[in-house]
Amino acid sequence: MTQRPISRDAIITRMDTYIAIDIGGTHIRAGLYPAEGIEPICVERIHTQGKKGSSLERLFEVITRIWPEKDTVRCVGLAAPGYIDPHHGVIILAPNIPHWDHLPLQQLVTEKFNVPALLGNDANLAAMGEWRYGAGKGFHQLLYLTISTGIGAGVIINDNLLLGAHGLASELGHITILPDGPICGCGKKGHLEALSSGTAIARYVTAQISAGRDSLLKDEKEITSYKVALAAQANDGLSKEAVSRAGFYLGIGIANFLQTFNPAVVILGGGVSRSGPLFWDSMHQSLATHILSQEYLRDLQILPADLGDDAGLVGALALAHTCAL
Amino acid sequence: MTQRPISRDAIITRMDTYIAIDIGGTHIRAGLYPAEGIEPICVERIHTQGKKGSSLERLFEVITRIWPEKDTVRCVGLAAPGYIDPHHGVIILAPNIPHWDHLPLQQLVTEKFNVPALLGNDANLAAMGEWRYGAGKGFHQLLYLTISTGIGAGVIINDNLLLGAHGLASELGHITILPDGPICGCGKKGHLEALSSGTAIARYVTAQISAGRDSLLKDEKEITSYKVALAAQANDGLSKEAVSRAGFYLGIGIANFLQTFNPAVVILGGGVSRSGPLFWDSMHQSLATHILSQEYLRDLQILPADLGDDAGLVGALALAHTCAL
Repeated sequence: MTQRPISRDAIITRMDTYIAIDIGGTHIRAGLYPAEGIEPICVERIHTQGKKGSSLERLFEVITRIWPEKDTVRCVGLAAPGYIDPHHGVIILAPNIPHWDHLPLQQLVTEKFNVPALLGNDANLAAMGEWRYGAGKGFHQLLYLTISTGIGAGVIINDNLLLGAHGLASELGHITILPDGPICGCGKKGHLEALSSGTAIARYVTAQISAGRDSLLKDEKEITSYKVALAAQANDGLSKEAVSRAGFYLGIGIANFLQTFNPAVVILGGGVSRSGPLFWDSMHQSLATHILSQEYLRDLQILPADLGDDAGLVGALALAHTCAL
Repeated sequence: MTQRPISRDAIITRMDTYIAIDIGGTHIRAGLYPAEGIEPICVERIHTQGKKGSSLERLFEVITRIWPEKDTVRCVGLAAPGYIDPHHGVIILAPNIPHWDHLPLQQLVTEKFNVPALLGNDANLAAMGEWRYGAGKGFHQLLYLTISTGIGAGVIINDNLLLGAHGLASELGHITILPDGPICGCGKKGHLEALSSGTAIARYVTAQISAGRDSLLKDEKEITSYKVALAAQANDGLSKEAVSRAGFYLGIGIANFLQTFNPAVVILGGGVSRSGPLFWDSMHQSLATHILSQEYLRDLQILPADLGDDAGLVGALALAHTCAL
């Protein structure tokens, strides 16, 4: 028997890689990752909508851009906003992306690139990212809330992402906690998002100024929650009231969620969660008032999110990693 | 080698049995069950409190009464009200049973009878009972609500009972849905239980009559939700309002829970759940109004509980069965 010479091709080591995609209303971000860790090999960004090509074509383009020349892609993980059916990889409703309702995105990516793909809701996947690689590492029962223009959530129960029968679980921003309260972005009344999000804070101040209240912000053309936070720090009465009101209702919401899930850790992300102590003191005071029993606060950790704006991308990566399981 | 004669003792077949206990504020019920099925061999009942013996001694007595003479008890499953730590088998707080706070009941039963024991919250175990043996058979994502004097709940997620970090999850009767609403039995304001339970219905009518409203029930000494339901059927305006108000808030609560868990089935038990169509129509209308998306109602089944007053006992049995896993 003669020994076959080793060909040069066989010496080249093909590395396993993963691709993670975070699809937002404004941008699509795509990252190429090595087999382990969350340090990307490269990240690319593209506008979700534009003159050239549909959103789907733009998604395909950004995937093509980061596709490795020689290495193997094991799986593409996709985080998308809106109602997602993660069991079938279908976007049911994408409020901010035209023509994406009922889009079988997982299948389309698989067919285009001949690679396994998995799809999840962006807030759910951000929770998964924080749990696998961020502030929630090592916890088995986790509640994640992201408080920015809206309020998104994800829940880990016994080391599994809560999905529900159709993957629509943990829409906690749209829990009614004040039946006759302000209108939410979704059109319903008194949701947590309509009371404690950045949009809610800005709207409250705008409405109060329209009703004749005085404020440092009364001559602002467009009031944002960031401006309200700054005005509150400058001791503006109305802004302080708006910020602490948002914290108050968030405290009710978190009390409800603690009694619902009894998590070991609550992780808070999003811009509003980086508001000052006025917001947090108000939230903590309201939580202490509304919680059914101090038992829910025993050993509970309330932590800021670790991954910042990368939570969705890292979550999509964590989802892609489950392909290999 | 000589063959040993078979002794007469060895011919007696010892059957495996399970004991299930449902501990309430008024009665303790104990059932002895064969290895399979939910048809009891015998059931005994004892008052939880009385002149002779402590509640714990009474529990031990009723267990002794049903203990099989010859058969083997594989496990004792215990359902108890209040805050339970099922991970350690400890009753943390038992509002209706004196001296039972911080009682390591699981250990006490194990030591007394030399048998494995498991402890759970009664509403949680009723959910488990309905899921294993009742209306929820075959579903993987289940929400159970029992609406009587209070509102209890249990949730099955991916074929597992939702417990949380300390076993305190799914206290859904004490979710705040009307921050300035009526006082709950627990002392907090605007809980679902304070709006939609039998107690809430009776209290609402009582308060409205005290405030001068006319009603068929105005001369009743003690108004109960049952009397209100009857008066509503007799077209009493105030009673109809009270019943449909309770249904309205239950609809908000269920909408919240559907968005939280996205279950495939909702099972409703308890006396109030057997109220007439006025209650149910009001609940369904409110649910349709408040639900975030019709997607949550797709394929959803809302079913009456199957096991009635036996839910706790059958749930304790289902828990005992997990001993053998």
